[in-house]
Amino acid sequence: MAEDEKYALRIRGALLEKKILCVNVIGSPGCGKTTLLEQTAKKADFSFAVIEGDLETSRDAERMAALNVEAFQINTKGACHLEAHVVENAISSLERGYAKRCPGRPLDVIFIENVGNLVCPAEFDLGEDFKVAVSSTAEGADKPLKYPMLFASARVVLLTKTDLLPYVRFDMEMFRRDVRGLNPQSPILELDLTSGAGVDEWLSFISSKIEEKRGDVGR
Amino acid sequence: MAEDEKYALRIRGALLEKKILCVNVIGSPGCGKTTLLEQTAKKADFSFAVIEGDLETSRDAERMAALNVEAFQINTKGACHLEAHVVENAISSLERGYAKRCPGRPLDVIFIENVGNLVCPAEFDLGEDFKVAVSSTAEGADKPLKYPMLFASARVVLLTKTDLLPYVRFDMEMFRRDVRGLNPQSPILELDLTSGAGVDEWLSFISSKIEEKRGDVGR
Repeated sequence: MAEDEKYALRIRGALLEKKILCVNVIGSPGCGKTTLLEQTAKKADFSFAVIEGDLETSRDAERMAALNVEAFQINTKGACHLEAHVVENAISSLERGYAKRCPGRPLDVIFIENVGNLVCPAEFDLGEDFKVAVSSTAEGADKPLKYPMLFASARVVLLTKTDLLPYVRFDMEMFRRDVRGLNPQSPILELDLTSGAGVDEWLSFISSKIEEKRGDVGR
Repeated sequence: MAEDEKYALRIRGALLEKKILCVNVIGSPGCGKTTLLEQTAKKADFSFAVIEGDLETSRDAERMAALNVEAFQINTKGACHLEAHVVENAISSLERGYAKRCPGRPLDVIFIENVGNLVCPAEFDLGEDFKVAVSSTAEGADKPLKYPMLFASARVVLLTKTDLLPYVRFDMEMFRRDVRGLNPQSPILELDLTSGAGVDEWLSFISSKIEEKRGDVGR
Protein backbone atom coordinates (compact mmCIF):
# COMPACT_ATOMS: atom_id res chain seq x y z
CA MET A 1 0.00 0.00 0.00
CA ALA A 2 2.90 2.38 0.77
CA GLU A 3 4.33 1.68 -2.68
CA ASP A 4 0.95 2.44 -4.19
CA GLU A 5 0.82 5.83 -2.47
CA LYS A 6 3.80 6.89 -4.58
CA TYR A 7 1.82 6.16 -7.72
CA ALA A 8 -1.12 8.12 -6.31
CA LEU A 9 1.12 11.12 -5.64
CA ARG A 10 2.54 10.92 -9.15
CA ILE A 11 -0.95 10.80 -10.67
CA ARG A 12 -2.01 13.79 -8.57
CA GLY A 13 1.03 15.78 -9.64
CA ALA A 14 0.61 15.00 -13.33
CA LEU A 15 -3.10 15.87 -13.37
CA LEU A 16 -2.52 19.10 -11.49
CA GLU A 17 0.01 20.07 -14.12
CA LYS A 18 -2.52 19.28 -16.87
CA LYS A 19 -5.43 20.93 -15.02
CA ILE A 20 -7.49 17.74 -15.27
CA LEU A 21 -9.91 17.13 -12.40
CA CYS A 22 -9.93 13.50 -11.21
CA VAL A 23 -13.00 12.14 -9.40
CA ASN A 24 -13.17 8.71 -7.73
CA VAL A 25 -16.78 7.46 -7.76
CA ILE A 26 -17.53 4.83 -5.11
CA GLY A 27 -20.77 3.01 -4.34
CA SER A 28 -22.49 -0.35 -3.95
CA PRO A 29 -23.09 -2.69 -6.86
CA GLY A 30 -26.05 -1.35 -8.80
CA CYS A 31 -26.36 2.00 -7.03
CA GLY A 32 -26.29 3.85 -10.36
CA LYS A 33 -22.64 4.82 -10.88
CA THR A 34 -22.60 4.05 -14.62
CA THR A 35 -26.05 5.57 -15.11
CA LEU A 36 -24.79 8.73 -13.41
CA LEU A 37 -21.96 8.91 -15.94
CA GLU A 38 -24.38 8.24 -18.79
CA GLN A 39 -26.53 11.17 -17.65
CA THR A 40 -23.37 13.23 -17.30
CA ALA A 41 -22.45 12.39 -20.90
CA LYS A 42 -25.83 13.57 -22.11
CA LYS A 43 -25.90 16.91 -20.29
CA ALA A 44 -22.42 18.08 -19.30
CA ASP A 45 -20.83 21.12 -20.91
CA PHE A 46 -17.40 20.00 -19.69
CA SER A 47 -15.39 17.26 -21.37
CA PHE A 48 -14.59 14.00 -19.62
CA ALA A 49 -13.31 10.46 -19.96
CA VAL A 50 -13.89 7.44 -17.74
CA ILE A 51 -11.89 4.65 -16.15
CA GLU A 52 -14.21 1.73 -15.42
CA GLY A 53 -13.26 -0.73 -12.68
CA ASP A 54 -14.88 -4.13 -12.49
CA LEU A 55 -13.83 -7.62 -11.51
CA GLU A 56 -14.94 -8.92 -14.89
CA THR A 57 -16.79 -7.79 -18.05
CA SER A 58 -16.40 -4.61 -20.06
CA ARG A 59 -20.09 -3.76 -20.04
CA ASP A 60 -19.66 -0.39 -18.36
CA ALA A 61 -16.99 0.79 -20.80
CA GLU A 62 -19.28 -0.32 -23.64
CA ARG A 63 -22.11 1.75 -22.18
CA MET A 64 -19.80 4.78 -22.16
CA ALA A 65 -18.51 4.14 -25.67
CA ALA A 66 -22.12 4.00 -26.92
CA LEU A 67 -22.39 7.65 -25.82
CA ASN A 68 -19.12 8.55 -27.52
CA VAL A 69 -17.30 8.86 -24.18
CA GLU A 70 -13.71 7.66 -24.13
CA ALA A 71 -13.52 4.87 -21.55
CA PHE A 72 -10.86 2.46 -20.38
CA GLN A 73 -11.96 -0.75 -18.67
CA ILE A 74 -9.85 -2.22 -15.89
CA ASN A 75 -10.73 -5.79 -14.92
CA THR A 76 -9.37 -6.45 -11.46
CA LYS A 77 -9.78 -10.25 -11.79
CA GLY A 78 -10.94 -10.73 -8.25
CA ALA A 79 -9.60 -7.64 -6.49
CA CYS A 80 -12.25 -5.63 -4.70
CA HIS A 81 -10.86 -2.15 -5.44
CA LEU A 82 -8.73 -0.26 -7.92
CA GLU A 83 -5.08 0.51 -7.14
CA ALA A 84 -3.06 3.51 -8.21
CA HIS A 85 -0.40 1.74 -10.27
CA VAL A 86 -3.09 0.25 -12.52
CA VAL A 87 -4.91 3.57 -12.71
CA GLU A 88 -1.73 5.37 -13.77
CA ASN A 89 -1.38 3.12 -16.81
CA ALA A 90 -5.06 3.48 -17.57
CA ILE A 91 -4.81 7.29 -17.53
CA SER A 92 -2.08 7.23 -20.18
CA SER A 93 -4.18 5.06 -22.49
CA LEU A 94 -7.26 7.10 -21.75
CA GLU A 95 -5.56 10.39 -22.63
CA ARG A 96 -4.30 8.98 -25.92
CA GLY A 97 -7.75 7.63 -26.77
CA TYR A 98 -9.40 10.90 -25.81
CA ALA A 99 -6.98 12.97 -27.92
CA LYS A 100 -7.91 10.86 -30.95
CA ARG A 101 -11.63 10.95 -30.23
CA CYS A 102 -11.83 14.68 -29.53
CA PRO A 103 -8.84 16.28 -31.24
CA GLY A 104 -8.07 19.79 -30.01
CA ARG A 105 -10.56 19.74 -27.12
CA PRO A 106 -8.91 19.86 -23.69
CA LEU A 107 -9.91 17.11 -21.24
CA ASP A 108 -11.57 18.63 -18.16
CA VAL A 109 -12.35 15.61 -15.98
CA ILE A 110 -11.40 11.96 -15.52
CA PHE A 111 -14.05 10.00 -13.65
CA ILE A 112 -12.89 6.76 -12.08
CA GLU A 113 -15.81 4.41 -11.52
CA ASN A 114 -14.47 2.14 -8.81
CA VAL A 115 -15.45 -1.49 -8.19
CA GLY A 116 -18.94 -1.72 -6.65
CA ASN A 117 -18.01 -1.93 -2.97
CA LEU A 118 -18.33 0.49 -0.06
CA VAL A 119 -15.35 -0.77 1.91
CA CYS A 120 -11.92 -1.12 0.31
CA PRO A 121 -12.24 1.48 -2.45
CA ALA A 122 -12.66 4.09 0.31
CA GLU A 123 -9.24 3.14 1.71
CA PHE A 124 -7.13 3.43 -1.44
CA ASP A 125 -5.83 6.72 -2.77
CA LEU A 126 -5.88 6.77 -6.57
CA GLY A 127 -4.47 10.28 -6.92
CA GLU A 128 -7.97 11.72 -7.29
CA ASP A 129 -8.98 15.23 -6.28
CA PHE A 130 -11.84 13.81 -4.25
CA LYS A 131 -14.13 10.84 -3.71
CA VAL A 132 -17.86 10.72 -4.40
CA ALA A 133 -20.08 8.45 -2.29
CA VAL A 134 -23.09 7.03 -4.14
CA SER A 135 -25.88 5.23 -2.29
CA SER A 136 -29.37 4.35 -3.49
CA THR A 137 -32.65 4.63 -1.59
CA ALA A 138 -33.17 0.91 -2.26
CA GLU A 139 -30.17 0.11 -0.02
CA GLY A 140 -31.81 1.68 3.02
CA ALA A 141 -30.87 4.64 5.20
CA ASP A 142 -28.54 2.78 7.55
CA LYS A 143 -25.56 2.70 5.19
CA PRO A 144 -23.63 5.82 6.30
CA LEU A 145 -22.99 4.49 9.81
CA LYS A 146 -22.25 1.00 8.51
CA TYR A 147 -19.67 2.28 6.01
CA PRO A 148 -18.43 5.41 7.79
CA MET A 149 -15.04 5.72 6.10
CA LEU A 150 -16.54 6.36 2.68
CA PHE A 151 -19.24 8.75 3.84
CA ALA A 152 -16.82 10.66 6.07
CA SER A 153 -14.24 11.15 3.34
CA ALA A 154 -16.46 11.90 0.33
CA ARG A 155 -16.53 15.50 -0.92
CA VAL A 156 -20.12 14.98 -2.12
CA VAL A 157 -22.74 12.34 -1.27
CA LEU A 158 -25.22 11.29 -3.95
CA LEU A 159 -28.47 9.64 -2.94
CA THR A 160 -29.78 7.91 -6.07
CA LYS A 161 -33.07 6.22 -7.03
CA THR A 162 -35.25 8.82 -5.33
CA ASP A 163 -37.96 7.68 -7.78
CA LEU A 164 -38.21 4.52 -5.64
CA LEU A 165 -38.94 6.43 -2.41
CA PRO A 166 -42.69 5.67 -2.57
CA TYR A 167 -41.93 1.93 -2.80
CA VAL A 168 -39.12 1.36 -0.30
CA ARG A 169 -38.63 1.96 3.40
CA PHE A 170 -36.15 4.80 3.59
CA ASP A 171 -35.76 7.18 6.53
CA MET A 172 -34.51 10.34 4.82
CA GLU A 173 -34.10 12.22 8.08
CA MET A 174 -31.88 9.50 9.54
CA PHE A 175 -29.81 9.30 6.35
CA ARG A 176 -29.15 13.04 6.29
CA ARG A 177 -28.48 13.19 10.02
CA ASP A 178 -26.03 10.28 9.90
CA VAL A 179 -24.15 11.68 6.89
CA ARG A 180 -23.96 15.08 8.61
CA GLY A 181 -22.59 13.48 11.76
CA LEU A 182 -19.76 11.89 9.79
CA ASN A 183 -19.24 14.70 7.36
CA PRO A 184 -20.54 18.14 8.31
CA GLN A 185 -19.61 19.94 5.09
CA SER A 186 -20.11 17.89 1.97
CA PRO A 187 -23.33 18.47 0.04
CA ILE A 188 -25.90 15.68 -0.14
CA LEU A 189 -27.57 15.61 -3.56
CA GLU A 190 -30.74 13.65 -4.31
CA LEU A 191 -30.90 12.16 -7.80
CA ASP A 192 -33.41 10.29 -9.90
CA LEU A 193 -31.27 9.07 -12.77
CA THR A 194 -34.27 7.71 -14.65
CA SER A 195 -35.84 11.15 -15.12
CA GLY A 196 -32.60 13.07 -14.71
CA ALA A 197 -33.82 15.01 -11.66
CA GLY A 198 -30.88 16.31 -9.64
CA VAL A 199 -28.36 15.84 -12.46
CA ASP A 200 -28.04 19.61 -12.97
CA GLU A 201 -26.94 20.04 -9.34
CA TRP A 202 -24.35 17.29 -9.82
CA LEU A 203 -23.03 18.95 -12.98
CA SER A 204 -22.86 22.34 -11.23
CA PHE A 205 -20.90 20.76 -8.41
CA ILE A 206 -18.37 19.22 -10.82
CA SER A 207 -18.12 22.44 -12.83
CA SER A 208 -17.33 24.39 -9.66
CA LYS A 209 -14.56 21.92 -8.85
CA ILE A 210 -13.13 22.25 -12.37
CA GLU A 211 -13.01 26.02 -11.83
CA GLU A 212 -11.38 25.61 -8.41
CA LYS A 213 -8.71 23.38 -9.85
CA ARG A 214 -7.95 25.82 -12.65
CA GLY A 215 -7.63 28.51 -9.98
CA ASP A 216 -5.25 26.37 -7.92
CA VAL A 217 -2.93 26.00 -10.86
CA GLY A 218 -2.93 29.72 -11.56
CA ARG A 219 -1.98 30.62 -8.01
CA MET B 1 -5.35 -16.93 4.51
CA ALA B 2 -3.80 -20.41 4.78
CA GLU B 3 -3.83 -20.08 8.57
CA ASP B 4 -7.47 -19.07 8.39
CA GLU B 5 -8.35 -22.21 6.43
CA LYS B 6 -7.40 -24.27 9.47
CA TYR B 7 -9.99 -22.41 11.53
CA ALA B 8 -12.55 -22.97 8.79
CA LEU B 9 -11.84 -26.70 8.81
CA ARG B 10 -12.15 -26.81 12.58
CA ILE B 11 -15.48 -24.98 12.48
CA ARG B 12 -16.76 -27.36 9.80
CA GLY B 13 -15.72 -30.38 11.84
CA ALA B 14 -17.29 -29.11 15.07
CA LEU B 15 -20.60 -28.21 13.43
CA LEU B 16 -20.79 -31.56 11.62
CA GLU B 17 -20.36 -33.25 14.97
CA LYS B 18 -23.17 -31.14 16.44
CA LYS B 19 -25.41 -31.48 13.36
CA ILE B 20 -25.70 -27.71 13.06
CA LEU B 21 -26.09 -26.39 9.52
CA CYS B 22 -23.98 -23.29 8.83
CA VAL B 23 -24.99 -20.90 6.05
CA ASN B 24 -22.88 -17.96 4.85
CA VAL B 25 -25.17 -15.23 3.47
CA ILE B 26 -23.45 -12.83 1.06
CA GLY B 27 -24.84 -9.85 -0.81
CA SER B 28 -24.52 -6.14 -1.52
CA PRO B 29 -25.20 -3.47 1.07
CA GLY B 30 -28.95 -3.12 1.41
CA CYS B 31 -29.93 -6.16 -0.68
CA GLY B 32 -32.12 -7.47 2.14
CA LYS B 33 -29.93 -9.92 4.06
CA THR B 34 -31.14 -8.86 7.50
CA THR B 35 -34.74 -8.60 6.31
CA LEU B 36 -34.44 -12.16 4.98
CA LEU B 37 -33.39 -13.31 8.43
CA GLU B 38 -36.22 -11.34 10.03
CA GLN B 39 -38.72 -13.09 7.76
CA THR B 40 -37.01 -16.39 8.58
CA ALA B 41 -37.47 -15.65 12.29
CA LYS B 42 -41.18 -15.08 11.81
CA LYS B 43 -41.93 -18.19 9.77
CA ALA B 44 -39.29 -20.90 10.25
CA ASP B 45 -40.09 -24.13 12.05
CA PHE B 46 -36.37 -24.80 12.54
CA SER B 47 -34.30 -23.09 15.22
CA PHE B 48 -31.46 -20.74 14.35
CA ALA B 49 -29.01 -18.15 15.59
CA VAL B 50 -27.16 -15.45 13.67
CA ILE B 51 -23.66 -14.03 13.40
CA GLU B 52 -23.86 -10.48 12.07
CA GLY B 53 -20.85 -9.01 10.29
CA ASP B 54 -20.52 -5.27 9.77
CA LEU B 55 -17.71 -2.75 9.74
CA GLU B 56 -19.46 -0.73 12.43
CA THR B 57 -22.77 -0.59 14.35
CA SER B 58 -24.74 -3.38 15.98
CA ARG B 59 -28.00 -2.47 14.28
CA ASP B 60 -28.46 -5.82 12.60
CA ALA B 61 -27.94 -7.82 15.81
CA GLU B 62 -30.46 -5.52 17.49
CA ARG B 63 -32.98 -6.24 14.74
CA MET B 64 -32.51 -9.96 15.39
CA ALA B 65 -32.73 -9.59 19.16
CA ALA B 66 -36.02 -7.73 18.75
CA LEU B 67 -37.40 -10.95 17.24
CA ASN B 68 -35.98 -13.05 20.07
CA VAL B 69 -33.24 -14.49 17.83
CA GLU B 70 -29.86 -15.03 19.45
CA ALA B 71 -27.36 -12.91 17.53
CA PHE B 72 -23.69 -12.08 17.86
CA GLN B 73 -22.40 -8.93 16.21
CA ILE B 74 -18.89 -8.85 14.80
CA ASN B 75 -17.55 -5.40 13.92
CA THR B 76 -14.70 -5.80 11.48
CA LYS B 77 -13.48 -2.20 12.01
CA GLY B 78 -12.66 -1.62 8.39
CA ALA B 79 -12.23 -5.16 7.05
CA CYS B 80 -14.44 -5.95 4.10
CA HIS B 81 -15.22 -9.57 4.96
CA LEU B 82 -15.46 -11.96 7.90
CA GLU B 83 -12.60 -14.35 8.68
CA ALA B 84 -12.82 -17.81 10.16
CA HIS B 85 -10.82 -17.22 13.35
CA VAL B 86 -13.23 -14.45 14.37
CA VAL B 87 -16.23 -16.56 13.42
CA GLU B 88 -14.99 -19.47 15.52
CA ASN B 89 -15.02 -17.30 18.65
CA ALA B 90 -18.40 -15.90 17.71
CA ILE B 91 -19.88 -19.40 17.36
CA SER B 92 -18.85 -20.28 20.92
CA SER B 93 -20.52 -17.17 22.34
CA LEU B 94 -23.52 -17.69 20.13
CA GLU B 95 -24.04 -21.28 21.29
CA ARG B 96 -23.83 -20.25 24.94
CA GLY B 97 -26.31 -17.42 24.37
CA TYR B 98 -28.66 -19.67 22.43
CA ALA B 99 -28.57 -22.36 25.13
CA LYS B 100 -29.66 -19.75 27.69
CA ARG B 101 -32.33 -18.24 25.45
CA CYS B 102 -33.84 -21.55 24.31
CA PRO B 103 -32.95 -24.11 26.98
CA GLY B 104 -33.40 -27.70 25.82
CA ARG B 105 -34.07 -26.85 22.17
CA PRO B 106 -31.37 -28.05 19.76
CA LEU B 107 -29.88 -25.43 17.45
CA ASP B 108 -30.53 -26.37 13.81
CA VAL B 109 -28.86 -23.57 11.86
CA ILE B 110 -26.29 -20.81 12.24
CA PHE B 111 -26.67 -18.08 9.64
CA ILE B 112 -23.65 -15.89 9.09
CA GLU B 113 -24.65 -12.55 7.60
CA ASN B 114 -21.43 -11.42 5.99
CA VAL B 115 -20.30 -7.82 5.41
CA GLY B 116 -22.27 -6.21 2.56
CA ASN B 117 -19.89 -6.83 -0.31
CA LEU B 118 -19.97 -9.15 -3.34
CA VAL B 119 -16.23 -9.58 -3.69
CA CYS B 120 -14.06 -10.63 -0.76
CA PRO B 121 -16.66 -12.51 1.30
CA ALA B 122 -16.96 -14.93 -1.63
CA GLU B 123 -13.26 -15.77 -1.32
CA PHE B 124 -13.07 -16.64 2.37
CA ASP B 125 -14.10 -20.00 3.76
CA LEU B 126 -15.79 -19.63 7.14
CA GLY B 127 -16.40 -23.32 7.67
CA GLU B 128 -19.95 -22.99 6.35
CA ASP B 129 -21.88 -25.76 4.63
CA PHE B 130 -22.63 -23.44 1.74
CA LYS B 131 -22.87 -19.83 0.60
CA VAL B 132 -26.04 -17.98 -0.35
CA ALA B 133 -25.86 -15.20 -2.94
CA VAL B 134 -28.38 -12.40 -2.42
CA SER B 135 -28.97 -9.74 -5.07
CA SER B 136 -31.83 -7.28 -5.40
CA THR B 137 -33.70 -6.27 -8.55
CA ALA B 138 -32.74 -2.65 -7.78
CA GLU B 139 -29.08 -3.53 -8.39
CA GLY B 140 -29.75 -4.52 -11.99
CA ALA B 141 -29.41 -7.79 -13.87
CA ASP B 142 -25.74 -7.43 -14.78
CA LYS B 143 -24.38 -8.44 -11.38
CA PRO B 144 -23.79 -12.20 -11.89
CA LEU B 145 -21.18 -11.69 -14.63
CA LYS B 146 -19.59 -8.77 -12.77
CA TYR B 147 -19.22 -10.80 -9.55
CA PRO B 148 -18.88 -14.32 -10.94
CA MET B 149 -17.07 -15.92 -8.02
CA LEU B 150 -20.02 -15.47 -5.67
CA PHE B 151 -22.70 -16.49 -8.12
CA ALA B 152 -20.71 -19.51 -9.30
CA SER B 153 -20.07 -20.80 -5.80
CA ALA B 154 -23.45 -20.15 -4.13
CA ARG B 155 -25.64 -23.18 -3.42
CA VAL B 156 -28.74 -20.99 -3.83
CA VAL B 157 -29.25 -17.57 -5.43
CA LEU B 158 -31.87 -15.25 -3.97
CA LEU B 159 -33.25 -12.43 -6.09
CA THR B 160 -34.84 -9.97 -3.65
CA LYS B 161 -37.08 -6.90 -4.00
CA THR B 162 -39.21 -8.41 -6.75
CA ASP B 163 -41.88 -5.93 -5.59
CA LEU B 164 -39.75 -3.24 -7.26
CA LEU B 165 -39.79 -4.96 -10.68
CA PRO B 166 -42.46 -2.59 -12.07
CA TYR B 167 -40.31 0.42 -11.13
CA VAL B 168 -36.77 -0.60 -12.12
CA ARG B 169 -35.08 -1.73 -15.30
CA PHE B 170 -34.30 -5.39 -14.72
CA ASP B 171 -33.79 -7.99 -17.44
CA MET B 172 -34.97 -11.17 -15.72
CA GLU B 173 -34.09 -13.39 -18.67
CA MET B 174 -30.51 -12.12 -18.71
CA PHE B 175 -30.16 -12.52 -14.95
CA ARG B 176 -31.35 -16.13 -15.03
CA ARG B 177 -29.28 -16.97 -18.11
CA ASP B 178 -26.11 -15.46 -16.64
CA VAL B 179 -26.56 -17.23 -13.28
CA ARG B 180 -27.19 -20.50 -15.11
CA GLY B 181 -24.04 -20.03 -17.18
CA LEU B 182 -21.96 -19.68 -14.03
CA ASN B 183 -23.86 -22.14 -11.93
CA PRO B 184 -26.00 -24.73 -13.71
CA GLN B 185 -27.45 -26.40 -10.61
CA SER B 186 -28.27 -24.01 -7.81
CA PRO B 187 -31.88 -22.89 -7.52
CA ILE B 188 -32.73 -19.23 -8.16
CA LEU B 189 -35.47 -18.07 -5.80
CA GLU B 190 -37.41 -14.83 -6.26
CA LEU B 191 -38.37 -13.06 -3.04
CA ASP B 192 -40.40 -10.05 -2.04
CA LEU B 193 -39.41 -9.63 1.59
CA THR B 194 -41.98 -6.88 2.15
CA SER B 195 -44.94 -9.16 1.50
CA GLY B 196 -43.07 -12.37 2.33
CA ALA B 197 -43.58 -13.86 -1.15
CA GLY B 198 -41.00 -16.55 -1.83
CA VAL B 199 -40.02 -16.97 1.82
CA ASP B 200 -41.68 -20.40 2.00
CA GLU B 201 -39.45 -21.66 -0.84
CA TRP B 202 -36.40 -20.31 1.00
CA LEU B 203 -37.45 -22.06 4.22
CA SER B 204 -38.09 -25.32 2.37
CA PHE B 205 -34.64 -25.10 0.85
CA ILE B 206 -33.00 -24.62 4.25
CA SER B 207 -35.10 -27.38 5.81
CA SER B 208 -33.99 -29.80 3.09
CA LYS B 209 -30.36 -28.94 3.82
CA ILE B 210 -30.90 -29.49 7.55
CA GLU B 211 -32.26 -32.94 6.70
CA GLU B 212 -29.33 -33.69 4.38
CA LYS B 213 -26.86 -32.74 7.07
CA ARG B 214 -28.54 -34.95 9.65
CA GLY B 215 -28.38 -37.76 7.09
CA ASP B 216 -24.67 -37.16 6.50
CA VAL B 217 -23.93 -37.55 10.16
CA GLY B 218 -25.88 -40.79 10.40
CA ARG B 219 -24.08 -42.37 7.48
